Amino acid sequence: MTSPVTVGLLGGTGAQGRGLALRLARAGHEVLIGSRTLDKAQDATDDVAGRVEDDLPLRADRNAEVARDADVVFVTVPYAAQEATLAPLAEVLDGKVVVDCVNALGFDADGPHPLTVPDGSAAQEAARLLPGARVVGAFQNVSAVALLREDEAVEGDVLLVGDDDRARDEVAVLVEAVGLRPVHVGPLRLAKPIEDLTAVLIAVNRRYKAHASIQLTGLGVGADEAVAPGR
Amino acid sequence: MTSPVTVGLLGGTGAQGRGLALRLARAGHEVLIGSRTLDKAQDATDDVAGRVEDDLPLRADRNAEVARDADVVFVTVPYAAQEATLAPLAEVLDGKVVVDCVNALGFDADGPHPLTVPDGSAAQEAARLLPGARVVGAFQNVSAVALLREDEAVEGDVLLVGDDDRARDEVAVLVEAVGLRPVHVGPLRLAKPIEDLTAVLIAVNRRYKAHASIQLTGLGVGADEAVAPGR
Repeated sequence: MTSPVTVGLLGGTGAQGRGLALRLARAGHEVLIGSRTLDKAQDATDDVAGRVEDDLPLRADRNAEVARDADVVFVTVPYAAQEATLAPLAEVLDGKVVVDCVNALGFDADGPHPLTVPDGSAAQEAARLLPGARVVGAFQNVSAVALLREDEAVEGDVLLVGDDDRARDEVAVLVEAVGLRPVHVGPLRLAKPIEDLTAVLIAVNRRYKAHASIQLTGLGVGADEAVAPGR
Repeated sequence: MTSPVTVGLLGGTGAQGRGLALRLARAGHEVLIGSRTLDKAQDATDDVAGRVEDDLPLRADRNAEVARDADVVFVTVPYAAQEATLAPLAEVLDGKVVVDCVNALGFDADGPHPLTVPDGSAAQEAARLLPGARVVGAFQNVSAVALLREDEAVEGDVLLVGDDDRARDEVAVLVEAVGLRPVHVGPLRLAKPIEDLTAVLIAVNRRYKAHASIQLTGLGVGADEAVAPGR
């Protein structure tokens, strides 16, 4: 593996955050699980730590401290909490790679559906709130349930969008650490269909009682090559 | 296979229409390739017929006659032509299954990107224009290039959206005839992320010089079971 980095998860207490924490920590990265309160962060950290016998490099902290101490920051809050979470962190996240994993989805009697986001997508909203950060959209479609099953390999592709090529490359390394294949899509403005695909996957999961992920066929490249595609 | 049906392709002269025509005709369905003019429809029909040695059940005709004579009608026009193509056909398509394969995409210096559609999606626009038709969104993500390579199997899943369950089932049978796996997603309002995913796939294809399709992992069902999922 490549050199370990310190990964922070803002709002890392949900299934998605804990699943990513588990996989990233097992890959040897130091993981900071953040929440609004230290108690909630500690509970989530204990939950993740209790899932495996090995000691994992995990630490609980408040979101502000996580943002300060991490090299790479994942946003794993619900969409409704994104603006309140990120707005106060613009300065501390200046220059850092920020991985937005957020889906703006609603649910009603007919099931899941995409919400309209004034900035276009949750990832673009994060980029507006954090003008100095290097925002990459990723992991929006990965099943949190699958990530938390630490005894099973995860499968599927992680589609990467972001306007900073090198930031996307850094995130691609973390995607591989989690055991998934990174696929570079391109500019951040393509985040919305990827985020909204999660509504499609949830609808499929309910219908088929499954935990579906997406995979691209026909790429003709292994994960290694996928890290450094033609530009 | 199941009993052959007469499939009509409105605007079936592009790569997508010809690819679907080739695969459906080889599966034994009668295929009517439609265009605004008979000449263009005939040229496309000759192109498809010339790709294989066997005689295929193909016929060229104008869109209006195709809509009248087909049991199931595919819309394979560019988005910009959808309204002008469908509006005059509302009466003749009343009660018929209409498969909308349209993606509302734009292209600029930064590549492909989704267009805003007042009705929500191209498929929902088709449903508004054809209030009596049984509209199903399908085949938006399938590579036309792959469909036209008649010597190779196609791969990937076709995500089906539509508010008429039985219409979706009928389209699922045609998806299997083409050699792909049908996956029932649910209501037509989920068409937009599926249509817009094509912009993501085109961006990926340009970057990796590939013809990517999407596939869902973790469904745990074969194509047969996928035709009749739990509702």
